[in-house]
Amino acid sequence: MKIAFAGLGNMGEPIARNLLKAGNELTVYNRTRARAEPLGKEGAKIADKPAGLMPADAVFTMLADDGAVEGVVFGPGGLIETMPKGAIHLSLSTISVALSKRLAAAHAAKGQGYVAAPVFGRPEAAAAQKLFVVAAGAPAEHERVKPLLEAISQRIFTIGADPSVANVVKLSGNFLIASVLESLGEAMALVRKYGVDPHAYIEILTNTLFAAPVYKTYGAIIADEKYKPAGFALPLGLKDVKLALAAAEAMGAPMPLASMLRDHALTAIARGYGEHDWSVLAKLAAENAGLNGKTKVG
Amino acid sequence: MKIAFAGLGNMGEPIARNLLKAGNELTVYNRTRARAEPLGKEGAKIADKPAGLMPADAVFTMLADDGAVEGVVFGPGGLIETMPKGAIHLSLSTISVALSKRLAAAHAAKGQGYVAAPVFGRPEAAAAQKLFVVAAGAPAEHERVKPLLEAISQRIFTIGADPSVANVVKLSGNFLIASVLESLGEAMALVRKYGVDPHAYIEILTNTLFAAPVYKTYGAIIADEKYKPAGFALPLGLKDVKLALAAAEAMGAPMPLASMLRDHALTAIARGYGEHDWSVLAKLAAENAGLNGKTKVG
Amino acid sequence: MKIAFAGLGNMGEPIARNLLKAGNELTVYNRTRARAEPLGKEGAKIADKPAGLMPADAVFTMLADDGAVEGVVFGPGGLIETMPKGAIHLSLSTISVALSKRLAAAHAAKGQGYVAAPVFGRPEAAAAQKLFVVAAGAPAEHERVKPLLEAISQRIFTIGADPSVANVVKLSGNFLIASVLESLGEAMALVRKYGVDPHAYIEILTNTLFAAPVYKTYGAIIADEKYKPAGFALPLGLKDVKLALAAAEAMGAPMPLASMLRDHALTAIARGYGEHDWSVLAKLAAENAGLNGKTKVG
Amino acid sequence: MKIAFAGLGNMGEPIARNLLKAGNELTVYNRTRARAEPLGKEGAKIADKPAGLMPADAVFTMLADDGAVEGVVFGPGGLIETMPKGAIHLSLSTISVALSKRLAAAHAAKGQGYVAAPVFGRPEAAAAQKLFVVAAGAPAEHERVKPLLEAISQRIFTIGADPSVANVVKLSGNFLIASVLESLGEAMALVRKYGVDPHAYIEILTNTLFAAPVYKTYGAIIADEKYKPAGFALPLGLKDVKLALAAAEAMGAPMPLASMLRDHALTAIARGYGEHDWSVLAKLAAENAGLNGKTKVG
Repeated sequence: MKIAFAGLGNMGEPIARNLLKAGNELTVYNRTRARAEPLGKEGAKIADKPAGLMPADAVFTMLADDGAVEGVVFGPGGLIETMPKGAIHLSLSTISVALSKRLAAAHAAKGQGYVAAPVFGRPEAAAAQKLFVVAAGAPAEHERVKPLLEAISQRIFTIGADPSVANVVKLSGNFLIASVLESLGEAMALVRKYGVDPHAYIEILTNTLFAAPVYKTYGAIIADEKYKPAGFALPLGLKDVKLALAAAEAMGAPMPLASMLRDHALTAIARGYGEHDWSVLAKLAAENAGLNGKTKVG
Repeated sequence: MKIAFAGLGNMGEPIARNLLKAGNELTVYNRTRARAEPLGKEGAKIADKPAGLMPADAVFTMLADDGAVEGVVFGPGGLIETMPKGAIHLSLSTISVALSKRLAAAHAAKGQGYVAAPVFGRPEAAAAQKLFVVAAGAPAEHERVKPLLEAISQRIFTIGADPSVANVVKLSGNFLIASVLESLGEAMALVRKYGVDPHAYIEILTNTLFAAPVYKTYGAIIADEKYKPAGFALPLGLKDVKLALAAAEAMGAPMPLASMLRDHALTAIARGYGEHDWSVLAKLAAENAGLNGKTKVG
Repeated sequence: MKIAFAGLGNMGEPIARNLLKAGNELTVYNRTRARAEPLGKEGAKIADKPAGLMPADAVFTMLADDGAVEGVVFGPGGLIETMPKGAIHLSLSTISVALSKRLAAAHAAKGQGYVAAPVFGRPEAAAAQKLFVVAAGAPAEHERVKPLLEAISQRIFTIGADPSVANVVKLSGNFLIASVLESLGEAMALVRKYGVDPHAYIEILTNTLFAAPVYKTYGAIIADEKYKPAGFALPLGLKDVKLALAAAEAMGAPMPLASMLRDHALTAIARGYGEHDWSVLAKLAAENAGLNGKTKVG
Repeated sequence: MKIAFAGLGNMGEPIARNLLKAGNELTVYNRTRARAEPLGKEGAKIADKPAGLMPADAVFTMLADDGAVEGVVFGPGGLIETMPKGAIHLSLSTISVALSKRLAAAHAAKGQGYVAAPVFGRPEAAAAQKLFVVAAGAPAEHERVKPLLEAISQRIFTIGADPSVANVVKLSGNFLIASVLESLGEAMALVRKYGVDPHAYIEILTNTLFAAPVYKTYGAIIADEKYKPAGFALPLGLKDVKLALAAAEAMGAPMPLASMLRDHALTAIARGYGEHDWSVLAKLAAENAGLNGKTKVG
């Protein structure tokens, strides 16, 4: 299969590499060409602009936000203009529900396919083929691209025929993670006030009711108070919480906890934590409780 | 060892049974004597009032709230009055930090020992010896009662010498569970608005980042919308959130998410859900989004 | 002066009438022509489309939302296209800060003037020439239109040269009113639970520290529980709170109380109060406290 | 009439003076005797302990909090013990609803009268006889003390026969004031971000919809950012918000805005503003928006 891939960031590059390893003929595009060079050496063709990705049977996009996706898809020489009829756009990015709907309609109008397939997992998981994919799209299209998704993930969850639903699920998942950050932050501030060692505390939680990857990963970061370098920077987390709120608002659903997360993220950025990991929400909770700097445990 | 046990509710009874099975000489007390009869038949002595629990080397209490503990401990013929010097009170109940501090001081003044050992787990876990214990107390006392705690749990986490710290950790844990309920409720309302099947959604969450007991147990209840019978009734959950808030307030720590949980629990009770499981917080989130009754998924 | 006026709703019509009464030559436009007929009989010319408003020295717009303003200004035959150089657009509508900035830039590019002049007051105040105007724009332009603004208001507050600032102030004002509604709703629910007569309560408040129009007007509505017909419908209030949040977010400012108001408005709409006055927020507070129907005071 | 007065703080002293000026025979008590000396020189008798206040027909208390009232009323030689049958206790303090109920019951059991009469107004208003009194109690008792209340206030609002209702109304009033502080703080942060002069902004508000004493007084403090010396210190404000929450909780009513105020007050104290006026909530809002120090307006 002839495959194209746009967006070689921390997530995109290892995903593209797995597609290459799986024996596909791959053309890649990245705004900054330098990021594409390594894959070039490994056998991928490098395109200098989106139009150069064609022809292709399937085109992946893994881009930072709505704006970047719009540029590659609707811009001059973008996918809408250049993708062959019958080719399928696999959108892995975390984008708004509204844009996903717009993509679905625009591709359909051109006889092109569109499958939304956002992923859960961090760069290490991407490299190790351990991502989780939440996919939605027309069954026939989904069936055709399934082997490609298998090549980049440990498991695929198929969630329906309307692509935008996969984006809703992805956004809700990031909201749930942010909720864990806030709740852990408040809980940790409370127990620290009583002299509990943060690491001992996380040890208890993650060996009992909260034995889940998200508590382990973020519990460790929060206990260590090691919010830099950012695995997922706070402004990106804020963006996703806002997209979840927008998706909910469009359907008349309030999400008061999401509103709180949004406000705390804005506050944390105003307080200077815009380049920290989004788990820095826990630092805000600590500071609001009068805890500054590391806990001393004697 | 001569052991006494006060409080044979859904949790207390199976715990007491495990102590009996482990070969201890056991005297039990319950306000309603009928609840003690089965253990009586299995070999326990039954006391008609707290004073009848003595003499004992170790006395467990597993009671509903601060008031019940105060009655058994400070009331006429209560533990403070009747426990021998050197005997140890093991408090398993979820009580306020303030009461735990008061218990520690009162027992110390009488030369009695006191170990706070609240547990995580539901009645089934108690029966199966699968509880988690968070214990705090003077090391020598803790050492002496450790075999008893081992007889009722799968693992003991020792968290320090000040007993009240174990209570803080327990309360923070219940706060974290309640946070999961709220966040799941909001997330589920969002995805239901887009037609996602709740069970498919929980399947995704609990097989990916949220593969933890708490998400599995409560995710199933929320997806099924089966809030009765209550595993843990909403007013009890509200009580614990309020105790967490009080513990935090005593140290000058705000817990905005806990405040939200408190307000939502009060609202849910006002709306008629006072006898439902505390996961009914998710039903409130659904109703506030205009979702009533079951989602139809075609 | 030759004046044009677009938007003859509950507010627009009485304002336009005052301009006519002040002796101006007036041309009016309304999407539904019927609403323009009465003014036609009183001496105004009626235009069938925005282009028909020209030529004019000053053009007022008083429209429902951003979309309506965009249509009249940027649509075919809209103000940008048809306003003479040097003519001034007076925008009275409550619109987003972003749109106000866009209007300023677009008019400037065409050599047209633009003054943002949102108003505070209800239809009765508009009819009685009792509105308050918050105006911002280039001083020379502002000076020229001042007599027009005087003809429709009891007082003009000039707030700066950047028009969008007037819109920020207007949005912040509506946020403050919504805050009053929420706080009154919660306070009233509290005192009603203790049997206090709502009217006696409002009597106390508005004769002491809260002797302000907004407490009097809304206190009476809430005490009467008379949320229909809507003076200002809840969805309009929600729209303005969202615009305030958007304006704040654009500058990195969290507004947690505004977030709460947004969530409560969404909830109230989901519960069926979408056609009620925005003070129905107080009814939501009452219901969440278990109060249904009128308080009986014996 | 023989009158006694306990509590000569910022509020109590000027109130007691007005009672003296009105021609009453007055005995005063204050924990720190020095504060009583000036009134002594003006003709009052000074008691060294609460018991020394007797005999009296009416006893006023104006004390800092529940604890202080409990001491004077239930302590050794306190009012319950020493007040003659038929004498009336006039409680002006802002206390909990629970304590007010307890006072009513205790006085009734001794054949003593009890009228709750909390006041609105600051020390200047107390001195100028410009307080507002919210009074509740048995009509006959209320009738007897009415002339005394008239001597200290500009207006009395009688709210019912159950004294604790007056306390609920007082607490709800302080909650409403705190809500104004939060909303003004957020609104001011928003407009400051857009360069609006805070004083000009308050000028607009207080000359239009918000022409009320509370907006004028606090708007000026917030615009000036002059939070010290404190007219009403933040911890006192926090105390009252907590009492309102407790009163609401006792009746099953959530007050989400009160919860937010509580959390913000705790945060502000943790950030070092415990000795500032409670309007420092606005400073917290400003800081959370990234505003530090004074706005510069050119």
